[in-house]
Amino acid sequence: MKFALPYLIFLGDAQADLDAKTAFGVRDWRPGACVAQWALAGGKVDLGLPALAPAAAFATGARSLLIGVAPVGGQINPKWIPALVQALEAGLDIVSGMHTRLESVPEIAEAARRTGRALHNVRHSETAFPVGTGQKRPGKRLLAVGTDCALGKKYTTLALARAFQTAGHKATFRATGQTGIMISGAGVAIDAVVADFLAGAAETLSPANDPDHWDIIEGQGSLVHPGYAGVSLGLLHGSQPDALVLCHDPFRTEIDEYPGFLIPPLATVIDLNVQMARRTNPAAKCVAIALNTSSVSPEEGAAILRDHEQSEGLPCFDPMRSDLGPIVAGIVAAC
Amino acid sequence: MKFALPYLIFLGDAQADLDAKTAFGVRDWRPGACVAQWALAGGKVDLGLPALAPAAAFATGARSLLIGVAPVGGQINPKWIPALVQALEAGLDIVSGMHTRLESVPEIAEAARRTGRALHNVRHSETAFPVGTGQKRPGKRLLAVGTDCALGKKYTTLALARAFQTAGHKATFRATGQTGIMISGAGVAIDAVVADFLAGAAETLSPANDPDHWDIIEGQGSLVHPGYAGVSLGLLHGSQPDALVLCHDPFRTEIDEYPGFLIPPLATVIDLNVQMARRTNPAAKCVAIALNTSSVSPEEGAAILRDHEQSEGLPCFDPMRSDLGPIVAGIVAAC
Repeated sequence: MKFALPYLIFLGDAQADLDAKTAFGVRDWRPGACVAQWALAGGKVDLGLPALAPAAAFATGARSLLIGVAPVGGQINPKWIPALVQALEAGLDIVSGMHTRLESVPEIAEAARRTGRALHNVRHSETAFPVGTGQKRPGKRLLAVGTDCALGKKYTTLALARAFQTAGHKATFRATGQTGIMISGAGVAIDAVVADFLAGAAETLSPANDPDHWDIIEGQGSLVHPGYAGVSLGLLHGSQPDALVLCHDPFRTEIDEYPGFLIPPLATVIDLNVQMARRTNPAAKCVAIALNTSSVSPEEGAAILRDHEQSEGLPCFDPMRSDLGPIVAGIVAAC
Repeated sequence: MKFALPYLIFLGDAQADLDAKTAFGVRDWRPGACVAQWALAGGKVDLGLPALAPAAAFATGARSLLIGVAPVGGQINPKWIPALVQALEAGLDIVSGMHTRLESVPEIAEAARRTGRALHNVRHSETAFPVGTGQKRPGKRLLAVGTDCALGKKYTTLALARAFQTAGHKATFRATGQTGIMISGAGVAIDAVVADFLAGAAETLSPANDPDHWDIIEGQGSLVHPGYAGVSLGLLHGSQPDALVLCHDPFRTEIDEYPGFLIPPLATVIDLNVQMARRTNPAAKCVAIALNTSSVSPEEGAAILRDHEQSEGLPCFDPMRSDLGPIVAGIVAAC
């Protein structure tokens, strides 16, 4: 997928960083592609980029507005519509990861026609996917699984893919969500696939490859998430992972925005994922735990990693802080 | 949904009864709505209805051609196109449960325009579903789960819904597949929902109800199916069943059309379904096993039921042969 670069990152009136995970993902992994941020009145998220409205952003070089907010349900908020029209009128394309197609909003469709700007719906694939076959494909695969949404599966797999490559292994990051696609330029937004073709889309995403090539596959949701577990299971079956990496936020005790839904013990979540994964790859195993320790000091983070290594009996790492060389070597040796 | 009745059932060139399960379902549960069948050259399926081409069927009263074939992937076979055009030209509407929309085939769209006939795509809902919330709703719910696809989940729930009603309980059959929708006139084809909204669609299908009302929910696929397990899990989480009924074909040892994928022991499949169901309804339990014994004599079928009752320790029944009164009474007492 080709988008006009660089981006003005649109933050809507998001109140919390977790609501703008697309914005942070693109800023962190495509920093050269981000020149400015733009929030609506009342917005509280700050990426640390210059704050510019569309016309000023265009003048400094921006060529697309990227919707950096990720609301539950993926709908276009009516409050955004005047802002998106303003961006088109300033000369910017729009790059969106919403379920709602941009052109389905009449004001946006009309403004795009009038200004000649492009509308990109990253979440929608034009591919017709097959039903999953369960047939084993050559090549090694690693999949991030989680105790919840939005706790580091994308960062973990982006960091691991880079570390695999740095260590001299053939490895490809496979995006399964809109932000990952915006970062890597390819992939399938697995949660937007028609349900019957979930496993088939996951099979298509990591096709047969060299026996020593690693697909590092971004995870989605969680098998214990009341809303999204179906997506997670289709992705798990279709990915046929040899290696699972469990991603967890050590400060989260219940599912985000689902009060009362406690996160089970990590060993329970690991056992469940391994059991389900073995249906399509009997060799599947959990090889490591990725912990998001970004909210504490490096020393406290290191202590959390040590504690979890002892209690869980698996290598633990923070994808943004740990030396990933030994983690990669351990994974390759284990599979 | 309103369709012009009665139906001419279209069988394509299906070779096996299992490939025409829509046709058998509608024949068995809406017998008064089916006046004739029509197979292409080489077709081997026989519903026992008069074999009539579209013009003759129209002359005997047929007003819609219903596509009774259910191919994997749900695509419209190019071989069917001239036949479907012929049906429109004979004055019949078309009722389809395919993923492919009828109007996306240019020849069919053109013929429908020219003849003024209606095209019904039962698998597609116009509803925008929410993300699943996991919030418990009042009312009792029963969900059929399975060891595989196409072994009796629809027949089991249709028969149970009728038996609940006969026993004086408030009960509603909730269709989750195209054939169930064609039979009952309402429902959601859950496998055609965008994956992010799987659990939310299932929640929408059986909304809050009287505490003593039973939703009897048609199951889809299986948690151990390599292609469709994601659909099954989203339906399970969103349905929040109090009662699970496991549906099984006692003569099937591996997943149909997935050679090498053995069906696990029934107790394993039950444990897996109950474990997952308890995420959204901690009271979920498996209350009975429905066995499809249609391929053997009534005496042999009864022996199979007795054997399974002993080995599995649960009430076992054949939905088309057993007296369901005691089964219903047992389910109500257990929940």
